[in-house]
Amino acid sequence: MDTWLLQKEGFNVQDAAVDGSRFLCANGYMGLRGVPEEASSALFPAVTLAGVYDQNGDRWREPVNAPNCLYIRADFNGLPLSVEKTQVQAHRTALDYRYGIYSRETDFGEVRVSSRRYVSMASAHLLADEYRLVFFRDGELTLQAGISTDIWDINGPHLFDFRHSEGETLVTTCLTGQNRIAVAAAQCVRTDFEAPESLRKDETGIFRVFRRIVKKDETLTLWVFSAVYTSIDDPAPADAAQRCCAQAMAAGFDACLQAHKDAWEDIWARSEVMMEGNEEAALALHASQYHLNCVAPRHAQNMSIPARGLSGQTYKGAVFWDSEIFFFPMFVYTQPVIARSLLRYRIETLQGALKKAAEYGYRGAFYAWESQEGGIEGCTNFNVVDVFTHRPVRTYFRDKQIHISADITYALRSYWEITGDRSLLMEGGARVILECARFYLSRANARVDSDEVDFADVIGPDEYHERVTNNAFTNMMILHCMESALMLRDIFADREAWFDRLLKEMDYENDWALLDRVRGRVRQSRKQDGVIEQFDGYFELEDCSMETVRSRLRDPREYWGGDHGVAGTTQIIKQADVIALMALLPERFTDDQVAVNWDYYEPRTEHGSSLSACMYALTACRTGKTDKAWELFMKTAGIDVTGGGKQWAGEIYIGGTHPASNGGAWMIAALGFAGLRIKNGGLTLVPRLPRQIDRLSFPVTVNGQDYRVEVARDGGRIRQL
Amino acid sequence: MDTWLLQKEGFNVQDAAVDGSRFLCANGYMGLRGVPEEASSALFPAVTLAGVYDQNGDRWREPVNAPNCLYIRADFNGLPLSVEKTQVQAHRTALDYRYGIYSRETDFGEVRVSSRRYVSMASAHLLADEYRLVFFRDGELTLQAGISTDIWDINGPHLFDFRHSEGETLVTTCLTGQNRIAVAAAQCVRTDFEAPESLRKDETGIFRVFRRIVKKDETLTLWVFSAVYTSIDDPAPADAAQRCCAQAMAAGFDACLQAHKDAWEDIWARSEVMMEGNEEAALALHASQYHLNCVAPRHAQNMSIPARGLSGQTYKGAVFWDSEIFFFPMFVYTQPVIARSLLRYRIETLQGALKKAAEYGYRGAFYAWESQEGGIEGCTNFNVVDVFTHRPVRTYFRDKQIHISADITYALRSYWEITGDRSLLMEGGARVILECARFYLSRANARVDSDEVDFADVIGPDEYHERVTNNAFTNMMILHCMESALMLRDIFADREAWFDRLLKEMDYENDWALLDRVRGRVRQSRKQDGVIEQFDGYFELEDCSMETVRSRLRDPREYWGGDHGVAGTTQIIKQADVIALMALLPERFTDDQVAVNWDYYEPRTEHGSSLSACMYALTACRTGKTDKAWELFMKTAGIDVTGGGKQWAGEIYIGGTHPASNGGAWMIAALGFAGLRIKNGGLTLVPRLPRQIDRLSFPVTVNGQDYRVEVARDGGRIRQL
Repeated sequence: MDTWLLQKEGFNVQDAAVDGSRFLCANGYMGLRGVPEEASSALFPAVTLAGVYDQNGDRWREPVNAPNCLYIRADFNGLPLSVEKTQVQAHRTALDYRYGIYSRETDFGEVRVSSRRYVSMASAHLLADEYRLVFFRDGELTLQAGISTDIWDINGPHLFDFRHSEGETLVTTCLTGQNRIAVAAAQCVRTDFEAPESLRKDETGIFRVFRRIVKKDETLTLWVFSAVYTSIDDPAPADAAQRCCAQAMAAGFDACLQAHKDAWEDIWARSEVMMEGNEEAALALHASQYHLNCVAPRHAQNMSIPARGLSGQTYKGAVFWDSEIFFFPMFVYTQPVIARSLLRYRIETLQGALKKAAEYGYRGAFYAWESQEGGIEGCTNFNVVDVFTHRPVRTYFRDKQIHISADITYALRSYWEITGDRSLLMEGGARVILECARFYLSRANARVDSDEVDFADVIGPDEYHERVTNNAFTNMMILHCMESALMLRDIFADREAWFDRLLKEMDYENDWALLDRVRGRVRQSRKQDGVIEQFDGYFELEDCSMETVRSRLRDPREYWGGDHGVAGTTQIIKQADVIALMALLPERFTDDQVAVNWDYYEPRTEHGSSLSACMYALTACRTGKTDKAWELFMKTAGIDVTGGGKQWAGEIYIGGTHPASNGGAWMIAALGFAGLRIKNGGLTLVPRLPRQIDRLSFPVTVNGQDYRVEVARDGGRIRQL
Repeated sequence: MDTWLLQKEGFNVQDAAVDGSRFLCANGYMGLRGVPEEASSALFPAVTLAGVYDQNGDRWREPVNAPNCLYIRADFNGLPLSVEKTQVQAHRTALDYRYGIYSRETDFGEVRVSSRRYVSMASAHLLADEYRLVFFRDGELTLQAGISTDIWDINGPHLFDFRHSEGETLVTTCLTGQNRIAVAAAQCVRTDFEAPESLRKDETGIFRVFRRIVKKDETLTLWVFSAVYTSIDDPAPADAAQRCCAQAMAAGFDACLQAHKDAWEDIWARSEVMMEGNEEAALALHASQYHLNCVAPRHAQNMSIPARGLSGQTYKGAVFWDSEIFFFPMFVYTQPVIARSLLRYRIETLQGALKKAAEYGYRGAFYAWESQEGGIEGCTNFNVVDVFTHRPVRTYFRDKQIHISADITYALRSYWEITGDRSLLMEGGARVILECARFYLSRANARVDSDEVDFADVIGPDEYHERVTNNAFTNMMILHCMESALMLRDIFADREAWFDRLLKEMDYENDWALLDRVRGRVRQSRKQDGVIEQFDGYFELEDCSMETVRSRLRDPREYWGGDHGVAGTTQIIKQADVIALMALLPERFTDDQVAVNWDYYEPRTEHGSSLSACMYALTACRTGKTDKAWELFMKTAGIDVTGGGKQWAGEIYIGGTHPASNGGAWMIAALGFAGLRIKNGGLTLVPRLPRQIDRLSFPVTVNGQDYRVEVARDGGRIRQL
């Protein structure tokens, strides 16, 4: 078994959505869904651009899909060599995780089509495809390659005013509807054959058309080099795109491929977790690490990663808390420069967070729940459609999920603690922490007749219970945020000029006084036999089984949460909440506390979010439940191998890759199975190797120093490199 | 036109529910629904007892219906003389509002049945019926009179362990299921004819059976005297009931009727509003005053009135804010002893309010939203059933409608100001005010970084918008409550020993300090062009028309409120909210403010509650919109004449009489059209006589002094009596 290779036999139109994600190529700048070159928009092809958003009317604002500039289409003797239009004899798709190379081979009987392609990890704007035809009889070939404007959008269209130009390079430019961002796609080709060439230019795009009489057993190869640029990247994106693919063509397919592979080698050298003794697990882990690594921003220093990576427009292409809580750990331990970029994105979108807080009548920074460029809140007040009335339902994710700001400051503090790099604090990170603490001061609900401070009317990680008070996760993460602010004061105030300047600029004097007064008063959750109550009144909710709740559904597509949902009035929760807190702040809880809470909450958790299993697995490791942890690990790591997770919510496509699970898989392996911890600045291990594997080893970088961690049956060790 | 008489021709089983309420007889102790004597439970007969509640299993807790002790059934030649079983030639029902006498006359062809009956206003436990038969051919009569245990219950059964005893008086005793309260019903009869008599005793009750051969043109009369007692009234309720009806029979039907009529004469002398020049209006006003007067507690000094009076078990027979805001004004101005009883009910149920506050983690008194005996909260967490899923929906009336406590203190203060009677304050009223103010102190949401105090997560009078912050009505009524507490201090502290003792007992020192600090900080609502925002963010809601909202319904029975309801996310409101505030605290607003807000809110108000029109009418008077006020007056006053209002919510019967509208009609006439005000202890008028009437006059009692108010075209005057 090749633990680096994902393969699939056969073609089935029903699988197109899932497979487009499973076979994704990406490089952080853009994602190319894993569908055949000839696919129409019905198979959901997409070249999804990172950080470029557009809104059409009052539909959801979402990332822009560029023109499909790797479009190739062949016809032989009038037969379309297309998986959609012609019955295939055989079809095989593969993705090489090590080098991010997608390949397909399709036997159409008289002709075999095969290709391999990649989105270059060495050159952010470049895509390349090697497309090969083998003929089993004589006939006439028509081969088209070009830039298709038949673009699949969920809430589009987003691109207008298409202009095509021809020459050695084909170039299509267009403008987004809302902000008039120019998007340019270019393509040039090489062939190993001679053929008369013409040009087709119509409302579906611009294409070179080759016609040729071919002989049985002949093999023809076409190399396509494409590039995408926007006016955000370059003031003359068409020229830049043209230059990029011309240079690639000049260098040649093999040279470009080698540069791309070298870049991947470097990524794996820095991040690969080697798991020995279980090939299925090793494959899943490679898949997870591939999918998270391939969507990481490497071309920019101030970008984050959408919740569905670059696999399409799902979830509005927005940045969620997934970035800080689920993606960040692998990067901060293996490629801190990317962790830094995720956080710089938050630093640079502080204005958006200040604005959002002010809109709700608060001070400080209230980050967007679904953050788009500039910190624009992509989350609307209506995120669910009722299956009975087909009416949008008011949900409160946007306005009540206030833990987002604390999740960000948690990551900022972790970055500092793990990398030892304080420059990020100086470059705006400290300001973010102080503004977030200020937000919580202003959002706090004090009683006038009591010392306790509540955080009322919030939503915790468990979104099924909306508008609760004193969510344990939220309150303790807020406390952590406040303590981080006070820690900054202890370390930097009256010692470092940049910090004192910052305080003066922010007029923070009164906030310090408030923080001192409030930090000890934040309400601690009630406990019952050691179980921390998820929020005030949770224990009074109906305590029934998952089966009971499920049996109440009248429609399988019903939303479970809120006052109308089957879970909302019961103790059934969507995902880890108290347990997530214990995973994030392990030092605040004893092993016994974790065990008691795990046993209480796990049977009450639907795991209806891909963010859930990883938190339960991490805490299961701590309490020695390694079999359970293993099961959850396999579920987490395998999600983008098998294409698990929900694809459709009613009529809304919510499929895509699952970077949070991908990051979760690394966390379970490194922080759970190996038990990696930072204690007093040093690294320690508390290994919990599951019986299903023999050995685990991986590199980490802490405080600028590279280490190799190795865990085997007889224990673990950390080797400084 | 007899402006005291409600009449209806014909019988229609579909109207039984509505007519049972329209033709109600009651005396504060019990209500007898206006259905024929022979009715089975399918026609919703009921003898509903005030203040006696029972819960069957986990169904809704509701008042107990006593055995039907005015049951009479005749059969002639085998033909049941029953509106349910035999086609009638003619049927006429009437209710004499002046004396509360129900009568029916039914022509069955061969026999005519007529009766008149009442629930005695002179003797709380007594009911009497005169039942007459006229024969148009010879034949054989079977006549049964007795106590039927075929009881209509909404969430029953509630009565168990029936025991019957016979003799001159039939007696049925039974026990409620939950609290084992004994309920006894007794009956004795007189006839003007001789007939062999036997006894039938089975699972449907106990009955005397008369058999007789009758001749054409013969007339027979049966007089039935019945009584109901419970073990709450008397330790030996069966004996007491037996005694009561034996005494009545000894006195005779006419004497008992005269005592009953005398009692009604006295009530009308104290309360009748005479409206001249419009008979339809005069009838409606008589109906309103009749229905409110007949459910007033007169047999006890510490009872209140359920929201649907004594017309059945609707709304759990519970006491709502309707008592203090809608019933109280007529009584405090006309029969202060009843107003006193309504408030003593609150004083004596303070323990329940303290308990409820404590359950939610607050101090002070949080009164029940649906109060049953002892202040028990009858409101559940689920008050609506979703029409699509048939699942109960979590509503927040119980936990968030906090204005209830301030509504009560508002009435307590009004009582004092209007009657000049401070004994109620000394007997517990002051304690209620202080405990309610304390509740609000504890419920207040202060920010730690701001001086303003919010009241977050509440429901105002407009129940369609759940869980809002800073509802204008709620905040200002709370402020009024706090100010009432502080007024008590100013007047009584350090001056009157009873008050100082109370403060000491309540340990109120710290609360005074908090009240002083908070009273000036309660958040004032935002204004936009003079319009007071109903709650924070209301103006940002979708501003669409009633028609638009209605057009979105997928089922006519859908609940409009909450996050799933068609109104919940728009500016469409269920009932007067800001306008109710302006009606209750007129001195806090200028005429211009009232006019601007009226014009804004009225078109956005569904008037989906019978509590709405009256508030709009009152404020319409103030701003000179007398035509609009008249229209709303007629809607309000006529509701129990026409039987308007919703009867069914899905499968739940919500019909009954509308005492809040009844009280509202008095308020519009006296406080609106006549413009009665108390200013510096004196009475003033600001008459706004609508063009539809010529003259208006009514008695009021203020400060123990009786007055007569007269308003005509040429102005108004107040005559001291």
